[in-house]
Amino acid sequence: MNDISSGKLRGIMKLADTNGRFKMMAIDQRGSMVQALADALNKDKADVQYEDVAAIKTLITRILTPNATAVLTDPIYGHPYSITEIPRDVALLLAYEESGYVSEGVAENERLSNPITNWTIEKAQRAGADAIKLLAYYHPDASPETLEHQQAFVRHVGDECEKHDLPFLLELVSYALEGTTKSAAFAKQKPDLVIRSVAEFIDPSYKVDILKLEFPADLKYTAEYQNASFYAGESAYELAEVKEACQKLDETSTLPWVILSAGVDIEEFIENVNLATDAGASGFLCGRAIWKEAVNYYPDTDAVKKFLESEATTNFKNANAAAENALPWFEHRQFGGPGNVKIAKQSATWYQDY
Amino acid sequence: MNDISSGKLRGIMKLADTNGRFKMMAIDQRGSMVQALADALNKDKADVQYEDVAAIKTLITRILTPNATAVLTDPIYGHPYSITEIPRDVALLLAYEESGYVSEGVAENERLSNPITNWTIEKAQRAGADAIKLLAYYHPDASPETLEHQQAFVRHVGDECEKHDLPFLLELVSYALEGTTKSAAFAKQKPDLVIRSVAEFIDPSYKVDILKLEFPADLKYTAEYQNASFYAGESAYELAEVKEACQKLDETSTLPWVILSAGVDIEEFIENVNLATDAGASGFLCGRAIWKEAVNYYPDTDAVKKFLESEATTNFKNANAAAENALPWFEHRQFGGPGNVKIAKQSATWYQDY
Repeated sequence: MNDISSGKLRGIMKLADTNGRFKMMAIDQRGSMVQALADALNKDKADVQYEDVAAIKTLITRILTPNATAVLTDPIYGHPYSITEIPRDVALLLAYEESGYVSEGVAENERLSNPITNWTIEKAQRAGADAIKLLAYYHPDASPETLEHQQAFVRHVGDECEKHDLPFLLELVSYALEGTTKSAAFAKQKPDLVIRSVAEFIDPSYKVDILKLEFPADLKYTAEYQNASFYAGESAYELAEVKEACQKLDETSTLPWVILSAGVDIEEFIENVNLATDAGASGFLCGRAIWKEAVNYYPDTDAVKKFLESEATTNFKNANAAAENALPWFEHRQFGGPGNVKIAKQSATWYQDY
Repeated sequence: MNDISSGKLRGIMKLADTNGRFKMMAIDQRGSMVQALADALNKDKADVQYEDVAAIKTLITRILTPNATAVLTDPIYGHPYSITEIPRDVALLLAYEESGYVSEGVAENERLSNPITNWTIEKAQRAGADAIKLLAYYHPDASPETLEHQQAFVRHVGDECEKHDLPFLLELVSYALEGTTKSAAFAKQKPDLVIRSVAEFIDPSYKVDILKLEFPADLKYTAEYQNASFYAGESAYELAEVKEACQKLDETSTLPWVILSAGVDIEEFIENVNLATDAGASGFLCGRAIWKEAVNYYPDTDAVKKFLESEATTNFKNANAAAENALPWFEHRQFGGPGNVKIAKQSATWYQDY
């Protein structure tokens, strides 16, 4: 179907397993990791040391990445100390955006994403990245100024990834313009927010290759999960509506997509993976759902290791098992099967014009 | 010991197996491949079609690379059709040099290497290369003009690899200034030629990361192999001298080195690997010794496949078994063990200056 440039093709092949399913781990958390360490160490966030963040990232990377097809890390705390811990056959995704968001000088409750200062996609490629990940906060009903900023930011990364021929994995994270994301009211909005955001960024002008998406509903507020440990106590919809949202998301996404965990517990995440892959997702890119409790044991590194080797490894294996149901990326209608995937301008002279 | 930049470190990790041993396959032959196809098809070299060269390279890549830690291909016939055949966990080396050599306008019997027109290291990196390979013909007693040309060519590639932070694998191939390489006289010169060439290119100004070297002697002319199928009929030295040459080569090479096959038969190549790894080589980068007979069956692709799946696969497995004796690259005195390998300028701000 669609031909694909050489670098993007090779990069996407590396991110997935041999059968085309993405089983990727995120350890690029910065703000949330520092907060988790502050809680574990009973300190203020500002007093958490760089060395502690780098150390726990190194441990998590060392022990868990052998389960992954790819690992996403950050250039600040992760990459310089973890690079030697990433197995040769686990692909490397590097984050482009600064952690968190800017909300000052922006319309109320709106969020602007920004790059890490002095960090470029050219540097990421030189450093060994097989793909680039960008997290963009997005609310389709934000002010035109905010929408334009976020769209331009995504477009910039798309252009740079095209220039360096690296796969572009775009992560979209919704937020509440009013109230909190931890409410039945926001849960009700979520399918619409996720699907409308996807509708925006599948536009070819953004040059996205893979979408990393929130689950397009909240199982904490789904009637059928009222006996689950994660149930919030009230329902926003029934499971049939959740499945419909997943289906609609898959119909909207003209690109392969994977599901993110947003720090939910592993039980809920496995349900998310099951439902998302039933609808056509190609796997997951998951961090905290797999390993978040490890941080609680820090600085007792023996206890951290023990948790990572036991429970976290089991979590990963369970997520991987759920992802066996995923749609191989090359089976996505964007590509149409392994026999149909080939490099663009395939010929005796491709390298001359490339 | 020596810190290493991020991209080169990640690239070298990918080229080797988990234990640091290189088991790499070359399928970047152009001149010799066209000649082999001409022989098989009973044609003139000029009448061999591009499509046939691409087709046999695709078959060899598809069937044999699952045995390799890395595959070396060329951008003309190999890459555009073979990229989808390279497993996600087999690293990709791309050749930089034009096949063959220029001998016109050059001192008698001397050889100049040149780049492929419209092909750059920047393009190779974008296309997904994990490392760059350059073949340079070299005779330390060539004229100053030839030496300077070859040295400048290697230095150019070293600079470009540094700029793009890709591992630079330099292949040195000796030749005869008088007479033929197929003689006891040349066999006698070989240890000296190989070792003196290594002595030149380990200079840090060339920025080489791994050397791909000829076996520093010729077992065809070694007394102890007089009963071997490959014995030439006369001897230039005894095995003890060959072992001494290997040892001296290893002492001279301040860089990890691998052995090439130069199209010898598999029996001889396995002996080369055994002797080279005994002396400290870190593995091999081997093409024709493993697969050359497959070309004889072309255009009968079923027969080609059958040979690749049976004999050639056995050849590869035997070479891999011999390479289990190799020195892991990180154990080379350049690096000093896995615990000592880390990225240069490792710190919280490495990405800012990188």
